[in-house]
Amino acid sequence: MNADLVEKLLYDFNNGSITALGKLITRVENRQPGWMKIMKQIFPCTGNALIIGITGPPGAGKSTLTNVIASELAGKGYGIGIIAVDPTSPFSGGALLGDRLRMAPTLELENVFVRSMATRGVLGGLSRSVGDAASLMDAFGKDVIIMETVGVGQDEIEVIHATDLVILVCVPGMGDSIQAIKAGIMEIADIFVVNKADREGADQVVADLKSMIEMQCHTDGPGPEIFKTVAVRGDGVFRVAEHAVKLGNQNKQHADAAKRRISNQIKTLARQKINSWMEASWSHNGDLEMAVRRVMKKESDPYSVVEEMLAPVKGMFTKEKQHD
Amino acid sequence: MNADLVEKLLYDFNNGSITALGKLITRVENRQPGWMKIMKQIFPCTGNALIIGITGPPGAGKSTLTNVIASELAGKGYGIGIIAVDPTSPFSGGALLGDRLRMAPTLELENVFVRSMATRGVLGGLSRSVGDAASLMDAFGKDVIIMETVGVGQDEIEVIHATDLVILVCVPGMGDSIQAIKAGIMEIADIFVVNKADREGADQVVADLKSMIEMQCHTDGPGPEIFKTVAVRGDGVFRVAEHAVKLGNQNKQHADAAKRRISNQIKTLARQKINSWMEASWSHNGDLEMAVRRVMKKESDPYSVVEEMLAPVKGMFTKEKQHD
Repeated sequence: MNADLVEKLLYDFNNGSITALGKLITRVENRQPGWMKIMKQIFPCTGNALIIGITGPPGAGKSTLTNVIASELAGKGYGIGIIAVDPTSPFSGGALLGDRLRMAPTLELENVFVRSMATRGVLGGLSRSVGDAASLMDAFGKDVIIMETVGVGQDEIEVIHATDLVILVCVPGMGDSIQAIKAGIMEIADIFVVNKADREGADQVVADLKSMIEMQCHTDGPGPEIFKTVAVRGDGVFRVAEHAVKLGNQNKQHADAAKRRISNQIKTLARQKINSWMEASWSHNGDLEMAVRRVMKKESDPYSVVEEMLAPVKGMFTKEKQHD
Repeated sequence: MNADLVEKLLYDFNNGSITALGKLITRVENRQPGWMKIMKQIFPCTGNALIIGITGPPGAGKSTLTNVIASELAGKGYGIGIIAVDPTSPFSGGALLGDRLRMAPTLELENVFVRSMATRGVLGGLSRSVGDAASLMDAFGKDVIIMETVGVGQDEIEVIHATDLVILVCVPGMGDSIQAIKAGIMEIADIFVVNKADREGADQVVADLKSMIEMQCHTDGPGPEIFKTVAVRGDGVFRVAEHAVKLGNQNKQHADAAKRRISNQIKTLARQKINSWMEASWSHNGDLEMAVRRVMKKESDPYSVVEEMLAPVKGMFTKEKQHD
């Protein structure tokens, strides 16, 4: 019954059904029966899309910029997928409606597919879900996939690292917080956008960015470019979109890029699998509960307890001696 | 040589040397030789400190509030530890100087110990480091440990979940972004603080919070309290500090709290250990590289490759299950 349903969805997916794409993403995200069959089957069709990450502090206008870039590129004939990562939703367990609402104008475009995503309380869960959704959009035939995220926290960092190109959105007048984000994110941004550039202080942000880039770029390359936009009016966005596609495709062609992407995917999958086995086995056996009780009585400590519990597994990995 | 150094540090630590505390935190954070000995040895002295999490969006004044709460409590004779989680530093690999600078006034207080922390590119690395630092401060004799974090991303969520009490700091006039964070964070906040309450719109934020609390709290308890502060002037902060200590101690005495904390700690340690073994073994054997090559040639896919690589380990976990 389930197998039939999955077959039907894959059939519709291959025939370009957006509904099937959405349903398959949900099925894979929730690890429902057949999810791995789906991912294995679509895998040969992946690796073609350009994946762009858009990051920056809350309130910088990332959603609007994503929206307008998507519209510009869709207008030029590109099929677009958007994955909006909602940083607040880990707490509530689902992406906020707000994001979807803000995305509304884009949603109406025929060749733009939007998906909001949130973490689910599993470490590595976000990057896994986002990666799977991107693979599905990629295999579906989308040309450009944009991942929009606030870009803080380890999980979101993994998402950003899995892209071909990173756009960092800054905004004037956010004081300390923007300064902090700028200082930390320099290393991975390929393009800087100063959004809301009609506001006072925009040129100062550009100047700050320039001097920071000069400080950091010791190579003889030109360093990341800085663009000024007013995304709500669409001002300056086309140039950003054009440059992002050009530079992203260059990055993508580096031999290392695909290798790193696949290596990360394998590691993420393996981590997730082994962690879920471990947790399942522990709660099944009551081992964890017993360990907790011993630690609470101070008969042992968490470090010794974990050493004991993992001793048999350690043997599997350590054919030779290994440090803790 | 190393063993002697660790012994000496532990000796000084037990005699109240702040320098030794700082050095031990660094040693454990970097997993330098002797780290596990240190953690095992101090473990029996942990479990006494009250752990408070302070979270909220960038620019809400978390650092200032943390600072003033620390000063207030230090003034009443409490020994305080502060762990400032820097959300931007994952990129640069170290906590920003900025945080330390902003903390300067507190640093001068004798019984306040401040530590900035950042993730290190390892999933779960932040919560592990923060947890270990808190244990060391706890064993050192600190009465209250405050963890300050932006609270987005899975790693930071883990940090927040490991506290006895959560203070959410809001601020007027941040528009959309604050609304989003409020909506998501409701479930875990014990106390709400509207900081910069001398600004226009403060009462509106309080009213919004009130109606959201009413919507969410179906229990007959009173629900989380809301406080207004102007942290830079110290206004209203004492009441927050007082209430936090009272309520935090109540939470801490719940039988479940310690159990959950230890259970999380064991899980985190186990995850970290098994993941590091796995990665070490793969890069050592060249298994990962070979798998990546096969996937790149489309001879296999990441899902099948991971299944194959983990097949022997899966047996370890499923064998245990069959014993029942």
